[in-house]
Amino acid sequence: MTEHEHIVSAFSQEIEALRTKILRMGGLAEQLLADAVATLDSRDADRAAAVILADRRVDALQSEIDEEAIRTLARRQPMASDLREIIAVIRMAADLERVGDLAKNIAKRVAAIGAERHSAQFGRGLGHLSGLALGQLKDVLDAYARRDAAAAVAVRNRDGEIDALYNSLFRELLTYMMEDPRTITMSTHLLFCAKNIERIGDHATNIAETVHYVVAGEPLREPRPKDDSHNYASLRYPADPAP
Amino acid sequence: MTEHEHIVSAFSQEIEALRTKILRMGGLAEQLLADAVATLDSRDADRAAAVILADRRVDALQSEIDEEAIRTLARRQPMASDLREIIAVIRMAADLERVGDLAKNIAKRVAAIGAERHSAQFGRGLGHLSGLALGQLKDVLDAYARRDAAAAVAVRNRDGEIDALYNSLFRELLTYMMEDPRTITMSTHLLFCAKNIERIGDHATNIAETVHYVVAGEPLREPRPKDDSHNYASLRYPADPAP
Repeated sequence: MTEHEHIVSAFSQEIEALRTKILRMGGLAEQLLADAVATLDSRDADRAAAVILADRRVDALQSEIDEEAIRTLARRQPMASDLREIIAVIRMAADLERVGDLAKNIAKRVAAIGAERHSAQFGRGLGHLSGLALGQLKDVLDAYARRDAAAAVAVRNRDGEIDALYNSLFRELLTYMMEDPRTITMSTHLLFCAKNIERIGDHATNIAETVHYVVAGEPLREPRPKDDSHNYASLRYPADPAP
Repeated sequence: MTEHEHIVSAFSQEIEALRTKILRMGGLAEQLLADAVATLDSRDADRAAAVILADRRVDALQSEIDEEAIRTLARRQPMASDLREIIAVIRMAADLERVGDLAKNIAKRVAAIGAERHSAQFGRGLGHLSGLALGQLKDVLDAYARRDAAAAVAVRNRDGEIDALYNSLFRELLTYMMEDPRTITMSTHLLFCAKNIERIGDHATNIAETVHYVVAGEPLREPRPKDDSHNYASLRYPADPAP
C-alpha cells in the first residue's frame, strides 16, 4: 500500500465511522419520538422522565460527531465530494439533535398535563401524525444509508401530508377548547406537542435535502412543494361542531 | 509579497467577507423580528406581507454564506483556528436563517388573527419579550464583531430572563382563553408568536456559544444555566384572576 492509499483508506474509515454514528443517532432520535408519543398517550411520568434523560445521549452523539468531523476536516483536508460528505454529516447531526430536543419537549409536557385525558379521536390523530413523522425519519435515514437521492426527494415531497394533518389537529384542538374551557391548559400543551411533531417532519425534510446534496453533488434548487398556508388556520368562535 | 503571504492574505479576505455577511444577515434578521412584532401590534397586513417577502433575503444570504464557506474550505484547506472560523460562520448562518424563519412565521399569523385585538397588557408584555430577544441578538452580534468571548457568555447567561417572561405570557394567555373562549383562536396564534420569540432567544444563545468557540478556541463545557422547568406551566381551570 502506498502512503497515498494509506491516507485515502484512513479517510474512508473516518467517513464511514461518521456515517455509522449518524445512523445510530437517527435510530435514537426515532426511538425518542416513538417513546415520547407513547408516554403522552399513557401519561406515564416515569417513562417520560426516561425520554428526557435519553435525549442526553443524542446530544452527546452530536458533540462527538461534530468534533470528529472537524478533526477529520483539519487532518485530511478533503476536496469536493469528501468535503460535501463531512459538511453533510455536521448538518444532519444538527437536525437530529433538534429532533431529539423536540421529542424531549413532548415528554416534558406529560408532567405538565398530568392525568387529564384527551379525546380518543385526538389520540388517534396524534398517533397518525407521529407515525407519519417516524416514517419520514426512517425513510430519509434509509435513503442516506443507501445513498439514494430519489428516495430523499420523495421524503421531501411527502412533507405536505404531515402539514395537512397537523393543521386538522390544530383545528380539532381549537374546537375542544371552545367547547370546554376546562381543557384549555391541556389542549395548549397538546398543541405544542403536535407542532413539535410537525417540526420533526421539517427536520426530516432538511435531512432529505442534505442527502440529495451529498449524493447528487448539488443542492436541490426547486422550492419545497409544501403549501403551508393551512398552518395558520383561523377558526372563529363559535366553533364548527367537530365532525 | 511571497506566494505564501499572498495565499494567507486572500484567505483573510475571504474570512473577512464571510464575517461581514454574517453581520449583515444578523442585522436583517433583527429587522425582521422588529418589523414582525410591530406588525402584530398594528395588524398591518401589508407590512406583514413585506416581512414574509424580506425573509427570502435572509435565506439567500445563508445559501451564499454556505457556498462561499464550503468553497473556502475546499480551496484553502485551513487548519485549526481558521477552520473554526469557517465552521462558526456556517453554524451562525443556520441560526440566523431560523431567526428569520421564526420572524416570518409571526408575520404570517397576523393575517390569521385578522383585526381582533389583544389586551394592551399582553401587548406590552410581548413588546418587552421581543425587546429582550432583540437585545440578545444585537449583543451577540456585537460580541462576534468585537471577538469578545466574555460578552458572548453574558448573552448566554441572560437567556433565562426571556424564558421567565415567556412563561408568564403563556400563563396570561391561558387566563384570557379561559375567561373568554371567543379569544381562543387569536390567543393560540399569539401563543405561537411568543414561543417563536422565546426560540429566537435560544438561537441567540446558540450563536453566543459559537462565538465563544471561535474566539476562545474551545466549546463552552458548562451546561446552560437556563432552568426551563417553568416553561411547562400547568395552570388549572378555573384560572386565577389576572392580576
